Amino acid sequence: MKKHNFFAGPSILSQYTIKNTADAVINFADMGLSLLEVSHRSKQFTAVIEEASALVKELLQVPEGYTVLWLGGGASMQFCMVPFNLLRKKAAYLETGTWAVNAIKEARLFGDVDVVASSKDANFNFVPTDFVIPADADYFHYTSNNTIYGTELRKDPDSPVPMVADMSSDIFSRPVDVSKYDLIYAGAQKNLAPAGVTLVIVKNDALGHVDRAIPTMLDYRTHVKKDSMFNTPPVLPIFSALQTLRYYKELGGIEKLMLADEEKAARLYDAIDSSRMFVGTAQADSRSIMNVCFVMAPEYKELEGEFAEFAASKGMMGIKGHRSVGGFRASLYNALPLESVEALIDCMKQFEAKH
Amino acid sequence: MKKHNFFAGPSILSQYTIKNTADAVINFADMGLSLLEVSHRSKQFTAVIEEASALVKELLQVPEGYTVLWLGGGASMQFCMVPFNLLRKKAAYLETGTWAVNAIKEARLFGDVDVVASSKDANFNFVPTDFVIPADADYFHYTSNNTIYGTELRKDPDSPVPMVADMSSDIFSRPVDVSKYDLIYAGAQKNLAPAGVTLVIVKNDALGHVDRAIPTMLDYRTHVKKDSMFNTPPVLPIFSALQTLRYYKELGGIEKLMLADEEKAARLYDAIDSSRMFVGTAQADSRSIMNVCFVMAPEYKELEGEFAEFAASKGMMGIKGHRSVGGFRASLYNALPLESVEALIDCMKQFEAKH
Repeated sequence: MKKHNFFAGPSILSQYTIKNTADAVINFADMGLSLLEVSHRSKQFTAVIEEASALVKELLQVPEGYTVLWLGGGASMQFCMVPFNLLRKKAAYLETGTWAVNAIKEARLFGDVDVVASSKDANFNFVPTDFVIPADADYFHYTSNNTIYGTELRKDPDSPVPMVADMSSDIFSRPVDVSKYDLIYAGAQKNLAPAGVTLVIVKNDALGHVDRAIPTMLDYRTHVKKDSMFNTPPVLPIFSALQTLRYYKELGGIEKLMLADEEKAARLYDAIDSSRMFVGTAQADSRSIMNVCFVMAPEYKELEGEFAEFAASKGMMGIKGHRSVGGFRASLYNALPLESVEALIDCMKQFEAKH
Repeated sequence: MKKHNFFAGPSILSQYTIKNTADAVINFADMGLSLLEVSHRSKQFTAVIEEASALVKELLQVPEGYTVLWLGGGASMQFCMVPFNLLRKKAAYLETGTWAVNAIKEARLFGDVDVVASSKDANFNFVPTDFVIPADADYFHYTSNNTIYGTELRKDPDSPVPMVADMSSDIFSRPVDVSKYDLIYAGAQKNLAPAGVTLVIVKNDALGHVDRAIPTMLDYRTHVKKDSMFNTPPVLPIFSALQTLRYYKELGGIEKLMLADEEKAARLYDAIDSSRMFVGTAQADSRSIMNVCFVMAPEYKELEGEFAEFAASKGMMGIKGHRSVGGFRASLYNALPLESVEALIDCMKQFEAKH
């Protein structure tokens, strides 16, 4: 049976990425060795990391003066690295979900945090847009897509201060004006690569302005100076990221990915909105293109378990909603084919017809 | 041509690990999905990380009261995490090479560091054994194997205070009395798995005794509490680690690995010692079983480039020495077959006969 991969992350990757990674695990770059067992300083791997960084710059039109980094530790590590390196006195944060809450918690260890707006009281079912960013903040941090709650801020906000964004779950799904940011970070395991590497795009001039001592590995300058090779980087995830980036370029770049993503999400939201049985949880104007969260309408609530089983029997994988929201979540990352969305809609319609 | 993988790290892994990883990249645990694209919270992956931790405990006979962790960020991240979590006032460090120097540098950000001995003046060609560890130190830190310099401390030192060891490049090559340690860490990319995960074995009671605020991701307690699943762990490297651990158990455990490692090293050191052309760089009593460093004798110095080419033509890969030592380095990690050591010795003899 065909499996449809709706996992929220780690999540579906292109067959191109998977196939090339499997091949390289057997024989990398015709070295006669596995990708798992070659030096990160071999010229073959150096070429991989250089091409991957160049493709990130090309696809996202990164301006001069920024460095692309590939770091271990996960996006959660960035929650402390960002304030360690950038917070002098005060930073502004937008509170839109669990990951934003976690980022705010870490920032408070380093200085004043001005939470400019929060949707916490509404269980984060929308992204606030009515807020004022203080002009004396060192930076404004937001989470562009809230995987758990299925909400998204799909345009670069206007800000009087440089921005920092956690784009872990929607990077490469829309063009970004990188020049508005001091730093963008993204855990790779959504639209890019298997878990184990975090992409960071940092403005070089934004670094070096704090007084505190920064442990070497947490200092972005360490990694900028050494092109992400200060220590052994996560070799395989970076190789896989390169495959995905090549695939994105081949497909036609970010605009093409964006159109396909928007089409997939529109289809699924339409199906939810035209159903009596399913209800979207996010406010319409905050709906995520990447993670579609929905629950059973109150009168069908008792059928939730049955639908979960029915969907599983049709090959739908990973659609259980996060416990903070309940119900269901279908993640429609770049690599998910439209066919999988159609299969899910079909499955929902069949189930509704049955009852 | 058969390739012989002497890379210092990332380095050779068993064919069992490589083959099973390649298979899982195509179809993991019969899920019909790639290991690259499944949730770390799937029951299939949870089973992987649990078995891997259990096998580490079994193979190293880890006593009760310790937790096995799988962390991102590399062993270099441990250089700051260790003092962040364990250094109250003063720590003792043994300076035996580049990684020890780096660990000492980070510790100094957190308190007093007593360097009990150093072989720096001898370009780290031996491991000091004549030193006194102050009884009021919070812990004593050492690097068990110095990959760059080919020296090793192959028995657990006696210490009046709990120990912390960086065993990145010789873990699983000898039995360890874990009860003497508060913490052991090892970047995986030598005897365990591809780059991207660090194994940590920590005594639970050693945590929670410092006053400073610790960023969440740098606090071992975060990961202890969540069984390394606070955030998305490096899924593939952990899967590969499990394969290696199963393979080690199947082979007969640590004692068997140790005997095989010692045999390989003895053969190569014997060949070096009985040659007129090659000279070992490490003092005999400090020689590493894992990394064998050697240079050309002065009168043959000019043949260095020619030998490098000759060895490469015979399939020897990764034997260039680190720039800090020069010459050659053959890394004989657990997965390297005796056959590769014999091939290298053969190659050295042939070259010597030619001249």
